Amino acid sequence: MLNEKLTNPKSIAIIGASNNLQTPGGRVLKNLIDQKYKGELFAVNPKEIIVQGVKCFQNIDNLPKVDLAIIAIAAKYTLDTVKILAQQKNTKGFIIFSAGFSEKDEEGKKLEQAIVDEINSVGGTLLGPNNIGLINQNFAGVFTTPIPKLNSKGVDFISGSGATAVFIIEAAMATGLTFSSVYSVGNSAQIGVEEVLEHLDETFEEATSSKVKLLYIESVENPQKLLKHANSLIQKGCKIAAIKAGSSSAGSRAASSHTGALANSDVAVDALFKKAGIVRCYGRNELITVASIFMHPELVGKNIVIITHAGGPAVMLTDTLSKNGLNVPEIKGKKSEELLSKLYLGSSVSNPIDFLATGNAEQLETIIDYCEHKFEEIDAMVVIFGSPGLFEVFDVYDVLHKKIRTCKKPIFPILPSVVNVKKEIDFFIEKGNITFPDEVLFGNALGKIVNTSKPKRITKIKSTFNSDKIRTIIKSVTNGYLQPQIVKELLLAADIPIVNEAICTSKKECKKVANELEYPVVMKIVGPVHKSDVGGIILNISSEEKLIASFDTIMKIEGATSVLIQPMKKGIELFIGAKKEDKFGHLVLCGLGGIYIEVLKDTQAALAPVSKNEALEMIQNLKSYKIIQGFRNQQGVNENKFAEIIEKVSDLLAIAPEIIELDLNPLLGNSKEIIAVDARIRIEK
Amino acid sequence: MLNEKLTNPKSIAIIGASNNLQTPGGRVLKNLIDQKYKGELFAVNPKEIIVQGVKCFQNIDNLPKVDLAIIAIAAKYTLDTVKILAQQKNTKGFIIFSAGFSEKDEEGKKLEQAIVDEINSVGGTLLGPNNIGLINQNFAGVFTTPIPKLNSKGVDFISGSGATAVFIIEAAMATGLTFSSVYSVGNSAQIGVEEVLEHLDETFEEATSSKVKLLYIESVENPQKLLKHANSLIQKGCKIAAIKAGSSSAGSRAASSHTGALANSDVAVDALFKKAGIVRCYGRNELITVASIFMHPELVGKNIVIITHAGGPAVMLTDTLSKNGLNVPEIKGKKSEELLSKLYLGSSVSNPIDFLATGNAEQLETIIDYCEHKFEEIDAMVVIFGSPGLFEVFDVYDVLHKKIRTCKKPIFPILPSVVNVKKEIDFFIEKGNITFPDEVLFGNALGKIVNTSKPKRITKIKSTFNSDKIRTIIKSVTNGYLQPQIVKELLLAADIPIVNEAICTSKKECKKVANELEYPVVMKIVGPVHKSDVGGIILNISSEEKLIASFDTIMKIEGATSVLIQPMKKGIELFIGAKKEDKFGHLVLCGLGGIYIEVLKDTQAALAPVSKNEALEMIQNLKSYKIIQGFRNQQGVNENKFAEIIEKVSDLLAIAPEIIELDLNPLLGNSKEIIAVDARIRIEK
Repeated sequence: MLNEKLTNPKSIAIIGASNNLQTPGGRVLKNLIDQKYKGELFAVNPKEIIVQGVKCFQNIDNLPKVDLAIIAIAAKYTLDTVKILAQQKNTKGFIIFSAGFSEKDEEGKKLEQAIVDEINSVGGTLLGPNNIGLINQNFAGVFTTPIPKLNSKGVDFISGSGATAVFIIEAAMATGLTFSSVYSVGNSAQIGVEEVLEHLDETFEEATSSKVKLLYIESVENPQKLLKHANSLIQKGCKIAAIKAGSSSAGSRAASSHTGALANSDVAVDALFKKAGIVRCYGRNELITVASIFMHPELVGKNIVIITHAGGPAVMLTDTLSKNGLNVPEIKGKKSEELLSKLYLGSSVSNPIDFLATGNAEQLETIIDYCEHKFEEIDAMVVIFGSPGLFEVFDVYDVLHKKIRTCKKPIFPILPSVVNVKKEIDFFIEKGNITFPDEVLFGNALGKIVNTSKPKRITKIKSTFNSDKIRTIIKSVTNGYLQPQIVKELLLAADIPIVNEAICTSKKECKKVANELEYPVVMKIVGPVHKSDVGGIILNISSEEKLIASFDTIMKIEGATSVLIQPMKKGIELFIGAKKEDKFGHLVLCGLGGIYIEVLKDTQAALAPVSKNEALEMIQNLKSYKIIQGFRNQQGVNENKFAEIIEKVSDLLAIAPEIIELDLNPLLGNSKEIIAVDARIRIEK
Repeated sequence: MLNEKLTNPKSIAIIGASNNLQTPGGRVLKNLIDQKYKGELFAVNPKEIIVQGVKCFQNIDNLPKVDLAIIAIAAKYTLDTVKILAQQKNTKGFIIFSAGFSEKDEEGKKLEQAIVDEINSVGGTLLGPNNIGLINQNFAGVFTTPIPKLNSKGVDFISGSGATAVFIIEAAMATGLTFSSVYSVGNSAQIGVEEVLEHLDETFEEATSSKVKLLYIESVENPQKLLKHANSLIQKGCKIAAIKAGSSSAGSRAASSHTGALANSDVAVDALFKKAGIVRCYGRNELITVASIFMHPELVGKNIVIITHAGGPAVMLTDTLSKNGLNVPEIKGKKSEELLSKLYLGSSVSNPIDFLATGNAEQLETIIDYCEHKFEEIDAMVVIFGSPGLFEVFDVYDVLHKKIRTCKKPIFPILPSVVNVKKEIDFFIEKGNITFPDEVLFGNALGKIVNTSKPKRITKIKSTFNSDKIRTIIKSVTNGYLQPQIVKELLLAADIPIVNEAICTSKKECKKVANELEYPVVMKIVGPVHKSDVGGIILNISSEEKLIASFDTIMKIEGATSVLIQPMKKGIELFIGAKKEDKFGHLVLCGLGGIYIEVLKDTQAALAPVSKNEALEMIQNLKSYKIIQGFRNQQGVNENKFAEIIEKVSDLLAIAPEIIELDLNPLLGNSKEIIAVDARIRIEK
């Protein structure tokens, strides 16, 4: 837990403070002084009496009690220092810049753990080690520059990489994005991204807290905590965007099943973000652009008007918005003609509204007023206004400044002339505005936000089926793939429809079973994992004669131990899978079967528990959804039933978390029923 | 044609020159003077004697002969001015800034045409009207600022939008991208983007010309010219990137066939760019990033090493490169251990090479030397180096500057600290380097370049089939959809395999035909366009009894005029289509049939003529290509045969350009043969 000594210290000691501004201990003190830290400041350095005008202690033993220690000395000295501070100086907040801990070697890891233990023993909080520190409204406890523009309604930014945090702050300064806090967690020895987010959630206050959170994550250590607090913050009205770097390495993992190949830790991250409602970004520029949009009023609706004096960028933005599913609707009718009459000849108001290179501030004001009050179909305005360099545009940006504050509809300012009207842009930013330099980067970011699904309510399992029975079965089995008969019992106990079937080891048994099930039947090999790869599935067996021949064929295949006989069912092949993904818990996947999952990789994944509504959203997001709906004169699939089975699978996983892989592949579906015709389950206790 | 009077004038007159720098006529003169134009300058303005130190003529009649006139007066005065210049002053180059022509109204359009006629009559060249002008090594004939850094090896940039050109120049200045020329074509009254490109192609000289061309296009007026010269320039070693804005509006067009719905002018642009080898961009930032990569040595191979002192950006770049099909291979072995021993403890050399926050210039030099000389598997280096703000990094960027010039492998510098080390970045750029501020934008642009296909050689048709027969058939038919029998004759004449079939209007005929073709047969409705929508296809008719019943069923359907009987063929459904797309000529499409084209929209398109190799590339680029290859134990399709038929369709279109729509849908294919089982052709003479 983060304590107030860390986030709002009344006194700070810099251990390793220096007059040399090229050292972390020198620069952090300078930052604290420059940013007018209001509490008491102490320096510790054996060689100095005064550091940067601050009283310096040569020996830490002489230091008075202090809330927060910022430690910038060699790693090997840190443990002793922490001990004295924790045990004698009532210090409860620690920021350790020093490197040379768990990121370096085993020895460093032990040292780090010893420090954490020491700090834990007094209920203290540690940020770092190996980080750049912490900036918030109270103090600038970082050794890096620049210090961003601070503002309690700016973004809260938690970063797993110090350098990335610096580069993001640098890039953000040119656009006017302000910060409420920046947490660099370094090695996350005690406090990681998840714990800071938890803190922001638990201390959130509607009136005073920032509503925008940015995360840069390299490793999700506690997915459930991340999910819980991100989801909670978003439910409270916050917006969160995050980069989870390291997405590509996971793809190479070997996998023993369809679901195994389709689900990996990056799919799990996607699923977690989707469930939480986090907008996933992949780069610094994108994160900043998304954050800048978040700092404007939320876009409600999809109808955008583009207002410009320059055709080209408006056309490119129209393309980009359209590609992202947003509308740039034509504006027609009397009011639009009225507006046109107020602009120079040759202007266009049909959307984009182009008021020509000669368009002026007064006209912009008129246009915005029409869009705000008279064009009811419009939900938001994007104003693209640069300059060829002939005259100043202070008046135009003043109109923007005023209208952004008074209009109910969001107004996004795209100001591309970063050279010609740099002064005007700087002045506009100084007054508290945020700008976007490139219309296409803006349009894609807006699209990404609009297309991120809403956070899901965390659901509980339904109790409509036999959980006792499920537990009894799980207790009775050993690790590995379950026998077909056990799979069937488990699915039936979970109320998941599976085709009637029986295993036969002799021709006589085959005949008996086939007669009971009624012809035509299907015969499948028991033994090898990929039945169809070895030719171990024979469909549409319509007579006893063919049944016997099929039995002979299959039993000759290597690895065959027996055969499975099922009635022949028809329908569209569907797929439901589940996989336990390390700390994330279970991923549930769905899609159409066969080539759709294997060639086209058209699947959707969600983190369990999956509600029926969430399952419906998954189904509707499939590229092949049209086939489920029924395409041309082909019957579709009952998507309600499909969603119900997905939910039941999720419930089964909740009762039997020992299931590490589950494949219903295929299920056969039509407009009335869906039934699994092949299933595999793997257990690990 | 662009003449030398426009591009390299010995004398320039500014019509409408002014001392007021807020006017185009004032600013262009200032630019010409500031950029040290070496020829003679004249001003024309009835109210002045000297303008900005340049001799001014009150009356154009007194002007001496002049090569180029830059006209910045009201539209209504331009025609008279042009007449005097063209007829009396031997002026052959014209740039008209003025607006109020074809972009405004009909009257303006007529005025514009009159000016073009006048200029054509003396063999002159006109850039504009309604543009910002022209900048090249010889003069800065634009009324806008800033003037970019000029350099004969910088990029040639042709823009269909003046404002977009300005914004691109502005954004490029921060990264060091230099220009060789900037052409703003405005209304393209005489000279459009295509004509400028033609000029650059025809005047191209290996030793002295720029090798990078950028285009911003809003309307492709002459696709064939664009294709010819882009392709030619690229074959000569140039690189071209282009934005074609206005891609989204086309999607809404109503269409009467599959191909119609899949092919539109934006697909045609894609196909044209692909054939030419142009890298298609969608925004200013992307265009600049691609151009900046073009200015570095070409990446040969796909193995990239990332060298950095900051982990985060390297991880994000690794993800981005991997997503784009590039490799960040692990570096192992003795040499890598040797390198590791030369870096600080805790560094990593396995790729990304991370030499820690404390890494210095000397270490960077060593690392680059290893990557250049010792790590043979590496094709290019990306160096990410910023600064947390503690000290200067001039020495690091000096190493980069030196190595970029001496290494054979390309080195791409990502310099994210745009605030902390702005001075160093500016100095680095001043010395002629180009930087990338964001690693992910860089990585995506590099991926886009690598994944753009090589330009196609423009092929001629083969003469292996009966073109006389084809012409005879085309001459004999009227506009509209051809009758099935004619379609069949046309396809057979083009050597395109189509299933044997016959049209029957009576049960008696049906019986006769089915016996000849041999059972089982297929019966299809003749009449309605979408046969399967109305239930007008009955497959697998195995007996005379079923044949008669089928005939009854189909003839009851509204619109049925007769039935078509074919032998029942089996195989994977394929699709080949063609559509005449306005000025672009014919688009040829291919894909798998059925849901693949209708639900998954998985098609590839190319601009005719399509060679067999190009057809193979199309097939291999299909998302469903694995199915064509043969998936699991399912037989695939002979892709060679598939490609041959695509080429034959292309040849047919060359001989019969009156074909405006052609659908072979489906063809049935297996590993041996491919045969069309349904075909439609529409003609417009």
